[in-house]
Amino acid sequence: MKSSAMRDLMAVTARPEVISLAGGLPDTGTFPPDTFAAVAQRIAAESCAKALQYGPTEGLGETKDCIAEVMAAENMRVDPEDMIVTTGGQQVIDLVTKTLIDPGDVVVAEGPTYPGAVPVFCAYQAEVVQVEMDASGMRVDLLEDTLERLDREGRRPKFIYTVPTFQNPAGVTMSLARRRRLVQIAHERELLVLEDNPYGLLRYEGDALPPLYALDGGVYVMYLGTFSKILSPGIRMGWVVAPPPVLEKINLGKQGADLCTSTLSQLMVQAYFERAPWRAYVDSLTEVYRDRRDTMLDALADHFPPQAEWTRPGGGLFIWATLPDFIDTTDLLARALRENVAFVPGEAAFLDGRGRSSMRLNFSASDGEAIREGIRRIGEVVTEQVNLYGTLTGEHQAVTTPGADVVQIPTPAERSRRAR
Amino acid sequence: MKSSAMRDLMAVTARPEVISLAGGLPDTGTFPPDTFAAVAQRIAAESCAKALQYGPTEGLGETKDCIAEVMAAENMRVDPEDMIVTTGGQQVIDLVTKTLIDPGDVVVAEGPTYPGAVPVFCAYQAEVVQVEMDASGMRVDLLEDTLERLDREGRRPKFIYTVPTFQNPAGVTMSLARRRRLVQIAHERELLVLEDNPYGLLRYEGDALPPLYALDGGVYVMYLGTFSKILSPGIRMGWVVAPPPVLEKINLGKQGADLCTSTLSQLMVQAYFERAPWRAYVDSLTEVYRDRRDTMLDALADHFPPQAEWTRPGGGLFIWATLPDFIDTTDLLARALRENVAFVPGEAAFLDGRGRSSMRLNFSASDGEAIREGIRRIGEVVTEQVNLYGTLTGEHQAVTTPGADVVQIPTPAERSRRAR
Repeated sequence: MKSSAMRDLMAVTARPEVISLAGGLPDTGTFPPDTFAAVAQRIAAESCAKALQYGPTEGLGETKDCIAEVMAAENMRVDPEDMIVTTGGQQVIDLVTKTLIDPGDVVVAEGPTYPGAVPVFCAYQAEVVQVEMDASGMRVDLLEDTLERLDREGRRPKFIYTVPTFQNPAGVTMSLARRRRLVQIAHERELLVLEDNPYGLLRYEGDALPPLYALDGGVYVMYLGTFSKILSPGIRMGWVVAPPPVLEKINLGKQGADLCTSTLSQLMVQAYFERAPWRAYVDSLTEVYRDRRDTMLDALADHFPPQAEWTRPGGGLFIWATLPDFIDTTDLLARALRENVAFVPGEAAFLDGRGRSSMRLNFSASDGEAIREGIRRIGEVVTEQVNLYGTLTGEHQAVTTPGADVVQIPTPAERSRRAR
Repeated sequence: MKSSAMRDLMAVTARPEVISLAGGLPDTGTFPPDTFAAVAQRIAAESCAKALQYGPTEGLGETKDCIAEVMAAENMRVDPEDMIVTTGGQQVIDLVTKTLIDPGDVVVAEGPTYPGAVPVFCAYQAEVVQVEMDASGMRVDLLEDTLERLDREGRRPKFIYTVPTFQNPAGVTMSLARRRRLVQIAHERELLVLEDNPYGLLRYEGDALPPLYALDGGVYVMYLGTFSKILSPGIRMGWVVAPPPVLEKINLGKQGADLCTSTLSQLMVQAYFERAPWRAYVDSLTEVYRDRRDTMLDALADHFPPQAEWTRPGGGLFIWATLPDFIDTTDLLARALRENVAFVPGEAAFLDGRGRSSMRLNFSASDGEAIREGIRRIGEVVTEQVNLYGTLTGEHQAVTTPGADVVQIPTPAERSRRAR
C-alpha cells in the first residue's frame, strides 16, 4: 500500500462522520486538563526561559531520570548516559535506520510489521525480510532459518526490528521462551536488535514478560520507548537506548535531524512526573482500553462472518483480523469508507504485497458505541463480499451475521434494481 | 571540524563559568513568563486533548495561518497548502536534503555556510560547492562561473542553499541586485533554491530587502522559516514552503522522520499569536540585540589587534571575524577555553578545510558585560598569538591592544621561566 494512499486514508478519517478504527491514537481526552494547567503553571513560574531555549542534543538530565523511572516500571535498569531523548518513537526508527543501513542492507522484521516503519525502511533502501508470527509472536524458529539462509547468501542483517509486546499491528505478544531464544541468537550471532516497546505498560490481563532489553542487558538490544501511549503523542517525546558506539552515531544523526528534542516537552514531562502520579494515569487508561478491547472482540463475534479470524490482544491498541483469501482489504476499504468507517488494510504492514486479506483495527481511540457501530458496518461490507463471492463462484453459502437476519444474496437483477 | 569536536565544544560551553560566544541562542529570558502562563492556561481550558494528540503530518491549519502572518510581515504571500510545519528549521534542511540528494549530487552553498547544515550535507553524501561571499553576500558572479564549470562537467546542482539575510555565520546580507540576479539564474537554469531565513525580522538598521521567495513567487525558491529566533527554539517549530511535487516528497519524509510536529508547540504558537502582540516581542528583541551587537563591535575595536577584520551585521545574531592567516582558530579555541571563553572556529562553516583563520561570534545570548569580557579574553589570546608569530618569524611588530599597555614580547627564556 502506497504511503500516499495511507495519507488519503488519514485525510478521510479526519471527517467527523467517519468512525475511524484506522489510527493508532490514544484517547487523550482522558487526561485531566487541570493537571496540564498545573504543570504548565509550574514551568511558567520556575523554568520559562529554559523551556523556550535549545537543550542538549541528547536530552535533559531531569527528563532522562523520568525515562529511567518508566523503564524501571518494566523492570529495566538503564544508565542515562546510554540514552538519547528523541522527537517521538518514530524518530528512533528513522535514526537507527539512517545510522545502520546502507542501500541494500538487510533488516529483519516481523510480518506484519509496524506500518509506520515500512516507509522508513524503504526510504533508506533497506531490504526487509519479514518473519511470520503466530499467537506467541515472531516465529523464532523461522527467524533462525532465515538467518541461516541469509548466511549462506553471505548476507548479514544490520538489525532485527521487533515489537515483542502487544505488537502493532498484530496484537500478539512474544512468549518468554522465544524472547530468551531471540536474545541468545543475538549474542551467538552478534546481531543488533531494535526492541520497539510503546505498549508494554498497557496490559489488560496476565503478568508482564521481561522486555528483551532486560534479558540482554543492553549488549545487543537497542530499546525504543515513547511517552505517546502512556501520556501524550502530541508532545512528540520518545527515547532510544543503545550501545555507546551506535548511540554516538545516533547522536550525530539527531543533531542533523532537528538539533534537540523540544525542551518544552521535556520539561512538561519532568514537571508532570514530579507532581502527578503518572502510573495512576496509565492504570486509568488501562481500564478504559480493556473495556474497549472487550467491546471490539464482542462486536467482531457478533458482526464478522465465521470465515474471519482475529487476534485477542492482552494489551496495546490493536486487533488484527484476517478474512478469506478472496477478499482484498484495500478494495474493501473503499467500500467501508462509503459506509463512513475506516481501518488499515493489511498490506500496509508488509513490504512484499502480503497481508491483502487482513486489516488492523484500533480500539483505543473510539468509545464503545462507535466501536460497535464501526465493526457492524465493516462486518456488513465483509459479509456482502463473502456472499458476493459465493454467488459468483456458485458456492451459495448464505452467511448469517449473528444478531442480524440471514443475509439474502440478491440476484444480479435485484442488485441492478437496487442500484437505481 | 568534526561534529564530535563541535559537541565537545557545546559541552564545555554549558559550564556556567564559560562565556560562550559560540552558540546561536536567542535570549529566551526576555520572554514574559506571564504570557507563557496565560497561553498554557488557554490550551488547558480549551484544547487540552487536542494539544496532547497526534496532528496531521503537514501541520495544523490554525498554525499555518500564524506562519502566513509571519511571512506577510516580510512581504511574502503564501498558500497554506504549499507549507509543512516542521520540527524546527533544522528539520527542513534535513528533509530537503534527504528528498533531493543522492550520494554524489551537488549542492551549492555559501562559503562560509551555516555550520548546522554541514553535517547534514555530509550525512547524505552531497558534494558541496561553496561560493565566496563579500559584504554584499554571495558573489553571484562567482556562482555563475561555478554553474558554468559544473555544466561543462555535465553536473547539475540539485539545489542552491543560501541564508541571504544576516547570514549565519558571516553576518552579511545579499544585496537587492544580487537577489534579483540569483532568482533570474534559478529561472534561466531551472534550479531550485533553498532560502533559509531565520533572522529576517531581527533587523537593527536600514530597510528590509525582499526575500528571494517574494521575488520568485515560490516557483524555484523553497523557503525555510522558524519560530526559533522570533519566539522560542525550545518549542522546535519551523516550516518549509516548496513547490507541490517537492512538498509531496518532503511530506513523506516528514512522516517517516517523526510523524508530525508537536501539537502542543503548534497550539502554543497559535494561542500566543491570538492573545499577544508577537511583533512587539520581536521589536523588543531587536532593541536588546542591537545594543549587544554594538557592544561587541566596540569590544572588537578595543581588544582585537589591527590585523583582524570583522563584519558589521545589520541584523541577526553573528559577527564573523577573520584573523591573520597564520592563526588557526581551532587551535586558538583550545587556548580560549582555558580562559573560559568560546567561539565557533571558522572551519565548521566549510566542507573543504577553509575558514581556518576565522571565527563566528554570537552576540544575542550574552549580556553586554559578558560580551565585553568575552571579547577581551579572546582578544588577549589572539594578540598573544600574533605577537608569538612575530617573535618566531623575527617580525617584531609589537601589537598594542587599545585600552591595554603595549604587550611586551617575552624572549624564549622569559617564556620558559614563566611556564615554571
